[in-house]
Amino acid sequence: MPRHRPVLLAAVLLLFALPARAQSPAATGEYPGLETGKMWTFDAPPMEYWAKRYDFRPTQAWLDHARLASLRFSTGCSASFVSPNGLVMTNHHCSRPCIESSTKTGEDLLGDGFYAPAKEGERPCQGLFMDQLQEITDVTDSVTAGIGAGTLPNVAADRRQAAIRRIETRCTQSVPNAACQVVSMYSGGQYKLYRFRRFSDVRLVFAVESQTGFFGGDPDNFTYPRYDLDLSIVRVYEDNKPANTEYFRWSPNGSKEGDLVFVTGNPGSTGRLNTMAQMQFLRDVQYPAQLDALARQIAVYQDLSRLSEDREKALRNTIFGLQNTQKAIGGYQSGLLDPRLMAQKREWERSFRARVTANAGYRQRFGGAWAGIETTRASLKAIDVRRRYHAFGAYGSRMLGMAAILVRWPVEMAKPDSSRLAGYREANKANLERVINSTTAVDPEQETRLLAAYFTAMKRELPATDPVLTAALAGRTPEVAAREMVAASTLKMAEGRKSLMEGGAAAIAASTDPFIKLARVIDPLERVIAKRVADLNNQEARFNEQVARALFAVFGNSVAPDATFSLRITDGEVKRYPLNGTYAPAYTTFFGLYDRHASFPGEEPWSLTKRWSERRDSLDLSVPFNAVSTADIIGGNSGSPVINREGQVVGLIFDGNMEMLPNRFLFTERVARSVWVDSRGIIEALRKVYGAKALADELEGKS
Amino acid sequence: MPRHRPVLLAAVLLLFALPARAQSPAATGEYPGLETGKMWTFDAPPMEYWAKRYDFRPTQAWLDHARLASLRFSTGCSASFVSPNGLVMTNHHCSRPCIESSTKTGEDLLGDGFYAPAKEGERPCQGLFMDQLQEITDVTDSVTAGIGAGTLPNVAADRRQAAIRRIETRCTQSVPNAACQVVSMYSGGQYKLYRFRRFSDVRLVFAVESQTGFFGGDPDNFTYPRYDLDLSIVRVYEDNKPANTEYFRWSPNGSKEGDLVFVTGNPGSTGRLNTMAQMQFLRDVQYPAQLDALARQIAVYQDLSRLSEDREKALRNTIFGLQNTQKAIGGYQSGLLDPRLMAQKREWERSFRARVTANAGYRQRFGGAWAGIETTRASLKAIDVRRRYHAFGAYGSRMLGMAAILVRWPVEMAKPDSSRLAGYREANKANLERVINSTTAVDPEQETRLLAAYFTAMKRELPATDPVLTAALAGRTPEVAAREMVAASTLKMAEGRKSLMEGGAAAIAASTDPFIKLARVIDPLERVIAKRVADLNNQEARFNEQVARALFAVFGNSVAPDATFSLRITDGEVKRYPLNGTYAPAYTTFFGLYDRHASFPGEEPWSLTKRWSERRDSLDLSVPFNAVSTADIIGGNSGSPVINREGQVVGLIFDGNMEMLPNRFLFTERVARSVWVDSRGIIEALRKVYGAKALADELEGKS
Repeated sequence: MPRHRPVLLAAVLLLFALPARAQSPAATGEYPGLETGKMWTFDAPPMEYWAKRYDFRPTQAWLDHARLASLRFSTGCSASFVSPNGLVMTNHHCSRPCIESSTKTGEDLLGDGFYAPAKEGERPCQGLFMDQLQEITDVTDSVTAGIGAGTLPNVAADRRQAAIRRIETRCTQSVPNAACQVVSMYSGGQYKLYRFRRFSDVRLVFAVESQTGFFGGDPDNFTYPRYDLDLSIVRVYEDNKPANTEYFRWSPNGSKEGDLVFVTGNPGSTGRLNTMAQMQFLRDVQYPAQLDALARQIAVYQDLSRLSEDREKALRNTIFGLQNTQKAIGGYQSGLLDPRLMAQKREWERSFRARVTANAGYRQRFGGAWAGIETTRASLKAIDVRRRYHAFGAYGSRMLGMAAILVRWPVEMAKPDSSRLAGYREANKANLERVINSTTAVDPEQETRLLAAYFTAMKRELPATDPVLTAALAGRTPEVAAREMVAASTLKMAEGRKSLMEGGAAAIAASTDPFIKLARVIDPLERVIAKRVADLNNQEARFNEQVARALFAVFGNSVAPDATFSLRITDGEVKRYPLNGTYAPAYTTFFGLYDRHASFPGEEPWSLTKRWSERRDSLDLSVPFNAVSTADIIGGNSGSPVINREGQVVGLIFDGNMEMLPNRFLFTERVARSVWVDSRGIIEALRKVYGAKALADELEGKS
Repeated sequence: MPRHRPVLLAAVLLLFALPARAQSPAATGEYPGLETGKMWTFDAPPMEYWAKRYDFRPTQAWLDHARLASLRFSTGCSASFVSPNGLVMTNHHCSRPCIESSTKTGEDLLGDGFYAPAKEGERPCQGLFMDQLQEITDVTDSVTAGIGAGTLPNVAADRRQAAIRRIETRCTQSVPNAACQVVSMYSGGQYKLYRFRRFSDVRLVFAVESQTGFFGGDPDNFTYPRYDLDLSIVRVYEDNKPANTEYFRWSPNGSKEGDLVFVTGNPGSTGRLNTMAQMQFLRDVQYPAQLDALARQIAVYQDLSRLSEDREKALRNTIFGLQNTQKAIGGYQSGLLDPRLMAQKREWERSFRARVTANAGYRQRFGGAWAGIETTRASLKAIDVRRRYHAFGAYGSRMLGMAAILVRWPVEMAKPDSSRLAGYREANKANLERVINSTTAVDPEQETRLLAAYFTAMKRELPATDPVLTAALAGRTPEVAAREMVAASTLKMAEGRKSLMEGGAAAIAASTDPFIKLARVIDPLERVIAKRVADLNNQEARFNEQVARALFAVFGNSVAPDATFSLRITDGEVKRYPLNGTYAPAYTTFFGLYDRHASFPGEEPWSLTKRWSERRDSLDLSVPFNAVSTADIIGGNSGSPVINREGQVVGLIFDGNMEMLPNRFLFTERVARSVWVDSRGIIEALRKVYGAKALADELEGKS
């Protein structure tokens, strides 16, 4: 799971409330295979499937309890209430902004961890909040009212957006502390109003050391067997008193292999309703280009690292981060390259389309969508090379990025605010100014090498007559061009940049700086291609909606919608899996933590804090530490609770294994596993390593 | 590594001695890539390659010492002297016959382990011996003398065999305790006389419990990270006194990641000189058929296991064993299916053939070999289905095997001994009689299911008119045919079989037993096809020899010959490798043993003996336990020492990882690793778990 999830702020805020009705669970699910996964919504729980597969028949009270004890955390994570006094459990990496902002001078809470045994010592998480889902209402009719089949795409989008804002505003104003969001399900096939109760007083109670919360670092990220205590605990207050609401009790016995478990949380994004054409585009165009770019970029940084120990140190985390992205995309791509998976997807699509075709009404309304998407994808494929090189995203070259800002600045500033490119609007432009005025020295060697690698790739992929290529190389080799450009440019120094910025359009037009010259060539081309890409994407959005509506027409709620960072419940079993000729066990233990630590002596990602080294012998090392199940999760589920049939906590989600990455497009459960911290491991560590008796007692209901 | 290596007895024995000269190390190695691996012979050590790659320049004394401290164990394993008093270190699984034969009534040495603190307590390993390599002599000229290009293949083979026997006999009689073997290198491109000193008084000193020596069982076999103490120690005596000869000293500090290490031992068999045609045959014909058969057989046993707990218990080890074979063949096949590996092999062959073609003499002598092999492989491919079904190897059906013996018995017994099929000769026939007279009950359900699966496969693969298929099914479904045959047959009971055996040819001819009837159809067909396969193999052997001679002509000794269960030395580095998105560490620790044990509570392959549970806290759990290096090994290397630059013991080979399996055909070292027990782990366990102070002292040179 990516270490640094983009923080999904509740961008979609909230004003008034529609009369809402509770949704009854889908009465007659068909469950046409689990290819589309198990990220069920609380208004359409798969009762028949659960009954059939697990003999599990939750009451509405069970479901309501699970929903209300689950939380969406404003850091782009999931969380859950785990005590009657407002304790909330989530991952360490989810509370990072709070840990950082809580750190006082002279402290290092990230490095040392934090524990407030008494409420007075808890520290406010500035600006963070938790959302508890109160109610789901179908607002599809209100959102789509007055948008006929003949409405132009742009007009339709604007009307939809306006309707959504109205609904959200009304909802937000309906009750105190309401936060409301219209969630588009099935790519706009359905619109659901999610009304939350927002808890804005969040305080830090406990955090492990970063080293413990990210043991194994980027190398071990997305892998299992694993030994990671990715845990923080906050407390939620209302009116300055601990929030007393629904919460998950702590399981007294934990889980065992074979147990049915559930995960509640907010999976961010999946592409399981993608058509074959979209998946083929990713497989054949987008991912290869991304992997290629990553490999080149990593190679440059690795070469640089060999130049000196200082560079090696400075670049280590950058390289790890890139390798982590490489691992993730490589994992998605491995699914798309798997002929069995693709055959399964193809068969799924074939049978789905056959059902659409068999119904005259469906055929007429949705039948053209797949061919439509094929056309847009073919167009996107045709312009992809230009999209990548008629662009400023030059593999991390700071100087080209700066040149882009300088060239665009006078043009954009001359426009009314609302017409500018987003970054240049009054509200945002300070960020760009910071880039230009930055006093952090440009590294000419790094710039040269990144640029040379970029030009080399360009030369291989673009026709010789391409205007950007011609402008960049001017007859030189990529290496010579890059070295000469960096050497000659005044953009290396802040003064050079400032004078160009202050000089305005005239200075830019007159500049002979090689980066400015190149940026002047790229700028108009980039605008053209960006417009074309946006148009194609808008076109395709309509087809996506048709596919989604068809899906819903054919299967109803029995197919779970793609993830939308909204609350879901997913089922799974605690289960080992075949790995590398043997089995990855369902559980690891603390023994394994110390084994992995001792196996990489002195290496940072596997180092232990003093506390963990010193208190080793006080731990029962055979206690389960991490564990896996077949629950269906993805980024955004970080911090989700793992609960048992009784709705009790048995674990805390923090990652998925490598084998889960292809699940982004097609759900399978043979070897894909969600990875969690075992509840028994949490208690053992709290009591024996952190001396957090009061906290452990409160979690276990002993206080 | 296969758990039960076929015990390669020194089938090639030994009588007289040629005057021998020591071979000088290859002076000018070319080392055209390492595709053919690093299993170097002691008469052609790759001095330039070692110097260049590791800055390592061993003296002749270093090499002689390493050779003389290394042993070939008659159980098909490798071993080494590790004390001046004849202590020999090898794997537990290599000493198994000795442990079994040493066990007295009321004891369970396999289950409990064994330790003789004093020499009086050591127990003789009946019939086992160790061979120490004294001298290597090139006898190619003597072996091939008088075999011209025009000699018929059969005649040439006979002459060669006779020459080899003469050479071996003379050598064996040359000095006391000599054991001599002519080893064919490069598929007969070279013949080398290996003269050994044989130590026939071998006594058991120490053995771990089977559970410890095979921790993780078949599931963990061929895998890493690993936690296995596959160790036994024997002592070699001469004239009733501990043998005092060259030995490897124990490293005082063990190894660390990045260290250069060597492994000396006797790799059994590789196919790195295989041509593309031979590899394609394995990939497209042989391995798919074997994997198919294994999968079917496993499915039958798994189905049977579900019938009762007793069956499940009885079949568990059979299933594990088959899965282990499946894992090994699957591993080989994964290499052949890897497009990159095959492309590398193809390029290697192309460049090799180009060099053959470029030399007129080579072209004339060797140039036709590849096309020749393509032809024989095409012929073998054409008859492969018949080879598999016009045969008695009916997936483990005991009854069909018995029927084969009964039908063939009168035919073979009527021939002179030397003309009979090997199993029916006077020296061997008791084994067949034992099969017929066995009192172990035939399991009709198991027979029926195995046979039904066999018939099903047959029906799918053979044409409907095939005589064996027609005879077997007689119009019935495979299931009905199998059930009726087993039900009707008298071969289920020993009496039924005995009366048919005693009745001779007449009884067989008159029998209406369905198995006898089927065997009468198979028998003549099987003889025809076996003859054809043997002829094709003989034909191909000559082409193989040409390829090997060409290789030797082009590259000389700089290409290591394929493994032949003769002493080799291989170099490697202690090195982690990328596994499943992260790294498999260079070393594991005792922590990991207890982690894996605790991760599979109550499951047999990962259980620990009482001793290991009770003494856990006395161990320093962070001591390195198992480790990996890039040394080039294969089955037969079991029990090999891992030594450092100083020729000191740092480990004990016992397995290779999954990723090493494709090395059978093309050596690579990115992720392929040999797996060993760390010398520090051995001492820690001997002292703390086994209380074997005297033994540990002797190994460490402290006694």
